[in-house]
Amino acid sequence: MKTITIYDIAKEAQVSVATVSRVLNNTAPVKESTRKIIMAVIEKHQFQPNALARSLLKKETGTIAMILPDITNPFFPEVFWGAENVAREKHYTFFLCDTAGEHSRESEYLSILREKRVDGIIFLGGRINLNQCPPALSQEVVELSKHVPIVLVNGNLPRSGLHRIYTDEEEGAALATQHLLDLGHRRIGFLGGMEETSTTQVKLKSVRMKLKEQGLTLRKDWVMFHDFSIEGGRALMDRMLEQEDRPTAVLCVNDFTAIGALKSATQHGLKIPEDMSIVGFDDSPLSRAVIPELTTVSQNTNQLGELSVEMLHELISGGNPRKRTVLQPKLVVRDSTGRPKNPAE
Amino acid sequence: MKTITIYDIAKEAQVSVATVSRVLNNTAPVKESTRKIIMAVIEKHQFQPNALARSLLKKETGTIAMILPDITNPFFPEVFWGAENVAREKHYTFFLCDTAGEHSRESEYLSILREKRVDGIIFLGGRINLNQCPPALSQEVVELSKHVPIVLVNGNLPRSGLHRIYTDEEEGAALATQHLLDLGHRRIGFLGGMEETSTTQVKLKSVRMKLKEQGLTLRKDWVMFHDFSIEGGRALMDRMLEQEDRPTAVLCVNDFTAIGALKSATQHGLKIPEDMSIVGFDDSPLSRAVIPELTTVSQNTNQLGELSVEMLHELISGGNPRKRTVLQPKLVVRDSTGRPKNPAE
Repeated sequence: MKTITIYDIAKEAQVSVATVSRVLNNTAPVKESTRKIIMAVIEKHQFQPNALARSLLKKETGTIAMILPDITNPFFPEVFWGAENVAREKHYTFFLCDTAGEHSRESEYLSILREKRVDGIIFLGGRINLNQCPPALSQEVVELSKHVPIVLVNGNLPRSGLHRIYTDEEEGAALATQHLLDLGHRRIGFLGGMEETSTTQVKLKSVRMKLKEQGLTLRKDWVMFHDFSIEGGRALMDRMLEQEDRPTAVLCVNDFTAIGALKSATQHGLKIPEDMSIVGFDDSPLSRAVIPELTTVSQNTNQLGELSVEMLHELISGGNPRKRTVLQPKLVVRDSTGRPKNPAE
Repeated sequence: MKTITIYDIAKEAQVSVATVSRVLNNTAPVKESTRKIIMAVIEKHQFQPNALARSLLKKETGTIAMILPDITNPFFPEVFWGAENVAREKHYTFFLCDTAGEHSRESEYLSILREKRVDGIIFLGGRINLNQCPPALSQEVVELSKHVPIVLVNGNLPRSGLHRIYTDEEEGAALATQHLLDLGHRRIGFLGGMEETSTTQVKLKSVRMKLKEQGLTLRKDWVMFHDFSIEGGRALMDRMLEQEDRPTAVLCVNDFTAIGALKSATQHGLKIPEDMSIVGFDDSPLSRAVIPELTTVSQNTNQLGELSVEMLHELISGGNPRKRTVLQPKLVVRDSTGRPKNPAE
C-alpha cells in the first residue's frame, strides 16, 4: 500500500501543503469550509503524519544529542542518566556520540548532528576541556551554535559566550586540600590527568594556592601527569614510590587515577591511609567499590546531567537562561584518608 | 530567508517531486533535458536537501537505537562503545535509550523509535532477560520487528524468531565452576541477580549441572538472589557469612555482585582467596580495579556490540544473516581464586 503523505492530502483537497500543515498543527487560522474539506480527506485516508514529516513542518525533531569523550568512564554514564530522565519528561530522545576525546570525531559528529537537525546539543570533554583550545576548533562550535542551541558541561571555549554548566572544580580541589591540611598533612602531592586539560590545570592551581596560604609549596617532583585512567594512576604511584622522599598524601585528578594509585600503593605494601592518604575526585560508584573506600569530591553528577537538559530545553524553547550555572562540589570523607604517621613531617 | 525545499525545486522546474528525488538520489533514470533543467534550478538556489527531507524520500534515516537497562552498569557502556565504532563506519548515528529495566519504559521507547523511523534497534536487558516473558510484552517487540529490524543481545523472546547474538553464559558458568573444582573446591555457593532473570537461571543451572557431574550437590542455603548491584553482592555475602557452615568458594552472577561480595568478606576479616575464592562474570574494567583482582568470565563485550551492529546492518540492507550468533566466553584467572585451605572439606 502506498503511504499517504501530506502532499497527497493537499493535492486531493486542492489546497497547498502549508494549509494542510496549518490545520494539522493549529499554527494559523484556516477558513472553516477549507478546514472541513481537509479534515474529510484526512479522515478518509486515516492519515497520520509521521514524526519525520511533522519535524520538517514544525522545524523541531524532538531529538537532542550528547557528545562525550568516553562512555566507559563511569562519570559520563552518570551524567547521561541524569540528563535522560529530564529529557524523557520533556519528550526528547537522545543521540549519544562518543568521540573518544578525538577532535576529528567531534567535528564529524557536529556536522552529522547539524544534518540530522537535532534541537540541541550537550557537549562534554574533548576540545572544551583543553586549557588552550585552538581557535579553529572553538570557532566550529560557535558557528554551529548559531543554528543549534549548545550547552557546554564542565568545560569552556574561550570567548565563545556559549551557555555552560559546571562544577566548581577549583573549589572542589580546595576542599580536598583543606581536608588533608586539617588531618595534619604538610607533604602533599598531585596526580593529574593529561597536562594540557583544564580539569587538570584548574585543580593543580587550586591545590597550589591552598598550600601557599599555609606557607607550603607544592613540590615539582610530586606533581605528575598521565591520562585519567586506572592504569595511568597506577603508573604514577609506581613512579612516586620510587622516590625516597615521598608525600604523606596525594590528591588525584579523578577517581580512576586514585584507584590506580591505591592499587599500586597497596601492591607496594603500603597501608592506606596509615602510610599514605589518597583523595579522588568525582564520587563515581567506583569510589565505594574499592577497599578502603575512597575519600573523594562529589560533583553531583546526575544533577549536572539534569540541569544541562533543563538549560538546553530553555534555549530550544526560545527562553533566556543564565549563561552560567555553577554547581558546588562536596567533600565526601571515607576511608582512604587519615592522619599522617608523623604530623611533624 | 525562506528555506528552499525539494517541493520548491519541483515547482520551479515544473516537474514532480519524485523526479527531483530521482535526480538527487540517482534512484532511476531521468530524461537528460529534464535533468538539466532540475540541476539548473538546484544550482540557482544552492539547494542542499536536509537529512530529514532526504530520509523521507529514501525511507532511511541513518539512525539506529540501542535500548538497554542501565548505562551506569559498566557492562553496557562497553557494549555501546563496540557498537558505536561499527555504526560510525556504516554512517549510523545512535539513539541511546536507558529503560532502567522497566517494561513500561521499554514500551514507551519502542513506540517513540517507531515514530522516529529508526532504521533498526538493538535490544538489551529488561523483558528479553526474563525467564518467562509475558506474551503481551513479547508480542509488542515481534509486532514492531515487522516494520523495523531488531537484534536481541544476550537475551531472547520465546517463539519470536528474532535475530539474536549472545554469549554462551551456560558455557561461561561451566568454565568458572570447572576452575573452582580444579583448584580443589567442593563446597561451592552461587550469588545470583534477580531470580526471575534468565541470566541468573542459566548460570545457576549450569553450576548445578557441573557439580552434579562430580557427584556434588549445590546446597539450597548457598544459593541466593539479589539485584546485580555492588550493594546487592555485599548484602548476600553478609548473609552467607552469618551461616556457620560456609562454602569455600562462590560464583557470582556478575562482577558487581562479586565486588560487593569481596568487600563484605574483606570487611568481615576474611582473606581472599585464602579464606574464600570469589569468581565474577563479565570481565568489566572494574574487575581489575579491586584488590585482589577478580577472576571472572570474559564476555567479549566490545565484540558483542560490534557484531550486533553488523547483524543489524545486514538486516537493514535486506540481507539474510544467521538467526543466532553465539560468542564463546573465556575464563580470566586473576587473584581472587585459589586452593581451599582444607581441600578435604
